[in-house]
Amino acid sequence: MALYKTFPIKPRQKLTNISQPTLSLIQHNSTQLSSKMSNLKSKFLEVYSLLKEELLNDPAFEFTDVSRQWVERMLDYNVPGGKLNRGLSVVDSYKLLKEGKELTDEEIFLASALGWCIEWLQAYFLVLDDIMDGSHTRRGQPCWFRLPKIGMIAVNDGILLRNHIPRILKKHFRGKPYYVDLLDLFNEVEFQTASGQMIDLITTIEGEKDLTKYSLPLHRRIVQYKTAYYSFYLPVACALLMAGKNLDDHIDVKNILIEMGVYFQVQDDYLDCFGTPEVIGKVMYCLACSNIGTDIEDFKCSWLVVKAMERCNEEQKKLLIENYGKEDPACVAKVKELYNTIDLQGAFVEYENESYGKLIKSIEAHPSKAIQALLKSFLAKIYKRQK
Amino acid sequence: MALYKTFPIKPRQKLTNISQPTLSLIQHNSTQLSSKMSNLKSKFLEVYSLLKEELLNDPAFEFTDVSRQWVERMLDYNVPGGKLNRGLSVVDSYKLLKEGKELTDEEIFLASALGWCIEWLQAYFLVLDDIMDGSHTRRGQPCWFRLPKIGMIAVNDGILLRNHIPRILKKHFRGKPYYVDLLDLFNEVEFQTASGQMIDLITTIEGEKDLTKYSLPLHRRIVQYKTAYYSFYLPVACALLMAGKNLDDHIDVKNILIEMGVYFQVQDDYLDCFGTPEVIGKVMYCLACSNIGTDIEDFKCSWLVVKAMERCNEEQKKLLIENYGKEDPACVAKVKELYNTIDLQGAFVEYENESYGKLIKSIEAHPSKAIQALLKSFLAKIYKRQK
Repeated sequence: MALYKTFPIKPRQKLTNISQPTLSLIQHNSTQLSSKMSNLKSKFLEVYSLLKEELLNDPAFEFTDVSRQWVERMLDYNVPGGKLNRGLSVVDSYKLLKEGKELTDEEIFLASALGWCIEWLQAYFLVLDDIMDGSHTRRGQPCWFRLPKIGMIAVNDGILLRNHIPRILKKHFRGKPYYVDLLDLFNEVEFQTASGQMIDLITTIEGEKDLTKYSLPLHRRIVQYKTAYYSFYLPVACALLMAGKNLDDHIDVKNILIEMGVYFQVQDDYLDCFGTPEVIGKVMYCLACSNIGTDIEDFKCSWLVVKAMERCNEEQKKLLIENYGKEDPACVAKVKELYNTIDLQGAFVEYENESYGKLIKSIEAHPSKAIQALLKSFLAKIYKRQK
Repeated sequence: MALYKTFPIKPRQKLTNISQPTLSLIQHNSTQLSSKMSNLKSKFLEVYSLLKEELLNDPAFEFTDVSRQWVERMLDYNVPGGKLNRGLSVVDSYKLLKEGKELTDEEIFLASALGWCIEWLQAYFLVLDDIMDGSHTRRGQPCWFRLPKIGMIAVNDGILLRNHIPRILKKHFRGKPYYVDLLDLFNEVEFQTASGQMIDLITTIEGEKDLTKYSLPLHRRIVQYKTAYYSFYLPVACALLMAGKNLDDHIDVKNILIEMGVYFQVQDDYLDCFGTPEVIGKVMYCLACSNIGTDIEDFKCSWLVVKAMERCNEEQKKLLIENYGKEDPACVAKVKELYNTIDLQGAFVEYENESYGKLIKSIEAHPSKAIQALLKSFLAKIYKRQK
């Protein structure tokens, strides 16, 4: 399973079997998004520079020149280099909750600051995840811990990234009525992500490779906790808090976003094997994902292998067990051939259609039009993406 | 510098040059402490079991049997095995703030829970610190990451330990008027500790060993941020919050505790070189500290080497630079010989007396007798300790 990936802003859309009003709503939002994107993104990046300056002059710590330079380089290397979709979607979501009302400069700034907190959280996970996985590249460049003179200091840098989040929140939200809810939210989501990472790690312990332990419920649990909470729920929850909502009143929104996160990750697992480099992007882009295309070699608990174990007969199961998780390209080829034999692509299309239908149905059952628009905008960004 | 060490409960006291009222106060508190210690400690350990059960049944995450067992083993291995002085001192400090009033069961429980949050924080630092330092043993057993099948999963276990703190705080303090201050406090202290760790790490980067970079202000800064905030200020700050105090009104208390923390660490650096195994304890105890006695080999920014650089003539400086940070026992012996030649033991006694005098003076200038008693009790635990 290729985790912690960025999701693309502008996917290729093949919108079939969708009701006309839904379709127009999604297209409307997508167009709105792309036309305003460059402005939004450049404003968003300005906020990064400001937050960084504040952190480099945090009165809670007496920086030396050397330590200030260290942190600045570490931030620039690890925080803003992704697609920023998680962060940008806070601003996006907040706009949709405000139902077209023009946002004040302060509102844009605050929503952006929360967006950056999620990007900081992501950077923290990525820096430590790469150490745990022994990865080599990330976002088209060497992993932070691979750089000369960094090494295991990167563990502490990850911790620093994590610690910057409450510094940002305190500086800009301490006086807000939802401040304590923000702290609770970030704490809970981080706990869930780390717990998801734990089940992923202990399932794939080196030397205990046992495919029969992999199952759809396990796959779902890993994905839900490790990816969906922070990538899908957290941005919307931030926007809801800023809009003065009580998160306890929006458990249904949370559930839909978690479903969307699971759906996104299944796509990711599918594209890891069946997405061609031409569609996914340039070689540099592939490098950027670091683990794209190596789920089979890495013995990942991917949706594909889990689904395959479900569809295989005893003989096929034996072949899969013998060849999964091996570096040898011949083994990988045998697994891929088996995936074709049992028509995993068909199984994926079936899953995608069913999942999409369910999501649309739950979204349309939501009483608030603004929240419907918000959720559909999220879904439009990921539905039938090919990279 | 030997960092993250526990401080002993009952030090050998040699109280000279102390006014009679001060002496009796310290002795009174020490006696009180030791007679009640076993009961207090067993109650404290009961709270650990309860908190652990709650964490293993946290509704924010769906545990599997395997993941629940993993977390339980990880907690038992890393959290309660130290001397628990930081944790116990929250209960202690709270009692002193209550000026002898009997504590309710709820108060004892809550103060203990906060104490355990500090022990969890310590465990988190230790697990990650051992990975960064490539250590082998901790508290008389192999470092967590050295155990079979753990390895780099320990990074995520460290993160889990850290994430347990806000779970404990939310469960038991969410309704308290000081809840948000507790969150802010733990966040700020963790940030300061990680920042202190950063300057320590980047000062001692492998391949850039340069003794002339070491200075008293740098040593002080590392110690203040990396050790003093969480070991000395945090327990008292927790007790102050529980007692309904505003931390902004107690900056003077913070400053005194930071001074005490610096003093404690200088002692630690001194004992690393001049504490004999007989005084420090059994071999197992030495192992428990993992880095005891190897500051010279490890090129640590110890108070001793910093003070030595200050006292050396040019020739001695050259000798020190040539021999510091080498594994070779002959080099270590040369450094120790030089330390004797320039009478670092005398310099330490001078530092200790001066520092103690200043601390007593600042404590006695504090308007509250309860806070004076609290601070003196802390000081009594560390003054002229020989292990």
